Amino acid sequence: MAEALRPGRTVDAEVWVLEGASFARKSDRLVTEEPLEIRLSAGAARRTLAVTMRTPGNDFELAAGFLIGEGIVARRDEIATIDYCLDEELDADQRYNVVNVALNRAALPQLERFERHFVTSSACGVCGRARLDALRDLGVAPLDDDLRISPELLYSLPGRMREAQRVFDSTGGLHAAALFDESGLPLAVREDVGRHNAVDKLVGWAALANALPLSRRLLVVSGRAGYEILQKAAVARIPLVASISAPSSLAVELARAFNVTLAGFVRGERANVYAARERIAVRPN
Amino acid sequence: MAEALRPGRTVDAEVWVLEGASFARKSDRLVTEEPLEIRLSAGAARRTLAVTMRTPGNDFELAAGFLIGEGIVARRDEIATIDYCLDEELDADQRYNVVNVALNRAALPQLERFERHFVTSSACGVCGRARLDALRDLGVAPLDDDLRISPELLYSLPGRMREAQRVFDSTGGLHAAALFDESGLPLAVREDVGRHNAVDKLVGWAALANALPLSRRLLVVSGRAGYEILQKAAVARIPLVASISAPSSLAVELARAFNVTLAGFVRGERANVYAARERIAVRPN
Repeated sequence: MAEALRPGRTVDAEVWVLEGASFARKSDRLVTEEPLEIRLSAGAARRTLAVTMRTPGNDFELAAGFLIGEGIVARRDEIATIDYCLDEELDADQRYNVVNVALNRAALPQLERFERHFVTSSACGVCGRARLDALRDLGVAPLDDDLRISPELLYSLPGRMREAQRVFDSTGGLHAAALFDESGLPLAVREDVGRHNAVDKLVGWAALANALPLSRRLLVVSGRAGYEILQKAAVARIPLVASISAPSSLAVELARAFNVTLAGFVRGERANVYAARERIAVRPN
Repeated sequence: MAEALRPGRTVDAEVWVLEGASFARKSDRLVTEEPLEIRLSAGAARRTLAVTMRTPGNDFELAAGFLIGEGIVARRDEIATIDYCLDEELDADQRYNVVNVALNRAALPQLERFERHFVTSSACGVCGRARLDALRDLGVAPLDDDLRISPELLYSLPGRMREAQRVFDSTGGLHAAALFDESGLPLAVREDVGRHNAVDKLVGWAALANALPLSRRLLVVSGRAGYEILQKAAVARIPLVASISAPSSLAVELARAFNVTLAGFVRGERANVYAARERIAVRPN
């Protein structure tokens, strides 16, 4: 097995550290986020069971554990083999993202009790880059607005969200997401056990109020910024996403490809800017 | 619309506060976690698009935002109506968990480009309780071991996990999950952008090592304990789950139904115990 081709658990990336009113370039380490397709086979039958966004590493364990948790297998000896689906024609970045679990039985088990059914594609590749392509195929173009905000406004956003959570009578203790206008005025805040749900609620709020696209709005999320958050922002045309925590590799890739400003670790008078930093207006020095 | 029947964003629950070496009963507020099924209809056609675990509230926004984010609709006027699927025959706790979005078009759009395809059930009900029933139907029974651990061991688990993350050369900054034996010895630690993936990796590690069931093991997770984490624990027969943060309502319900000890907010010499507290051995007073 060509170990060198495997995606690592982290990737190095250039990041701009915003401190006070100026930027400094730095090398940073991002946690890798890539899709993993889990396939099940028995005899000649094969089907895709799930696609999950994950950090590469221990992929066979992930597949086996998923099957255990869903009640598809109960013991080690029900599994014949677990392998990567390595196709010679695949690009390097598509390899090691498909795991096939072969069962020790002649036919696939009944899977009708599962809510989710997945279509098996004949191609043996799935990767983050393909996700970005799919987004382009949906007609989503890179953002090209001329929004500019000050570093001070960026720094103030996490505090403004906490304040908005109080104002909007939130329950607290949940993932939160909030929309602001370009002057920092809070427009809506939503909370949920799922971070992506909180963002969906905000975008849905705007859609039902006929306020799409969100071209000059700022999105703040309470936790990590993963791929899904950035996808939802790009589709809704939100030019800036700020998070108090770290982004994933694929979130940064998407932000760069679609020209969404992505700021992470927004704490005090400091932030890391991973993409489209020109929307943060610093004084020339 | 019968507002009184709607699930709230929080539910009150009895919890046992463990402080030092003794328990005190307290009323606590838990964030509600319940499934929401999003259905799409156009003309006479109807299909289930997704089932997501969410906190009730702003459900129509959630459905609309999900459709926007997935590129199924782009504007408000493509949506005719959004309604709860309220069936008179449903139990109260199954209502308000299905939202139907009717499109302003004669037929459903092409949805083949989506990876996930869902089977439409004729029943108009989905709820957390049904999930617990489904778990029982899989043959998962309540745990009935006699494991006992001291409060001191419970308090030490988050620190032991951080230590294990260092030992196992972890990348840091990710969701972590770790397995310990009943003396507190670390067996494995896994990290991932997805908390559920980290737990799948642990269970898969055990499965591939022929170490299932995990009957006398302790599971520690770095973040919130949601429904999925508890389901995976119950299936793998893990008797105790400790989290440094809050559990959801459905996680607590599952822990109680399957007799899994669930401790949250394990910080310093203090923890909240939500279910099966008898596994924490305190001195009688």
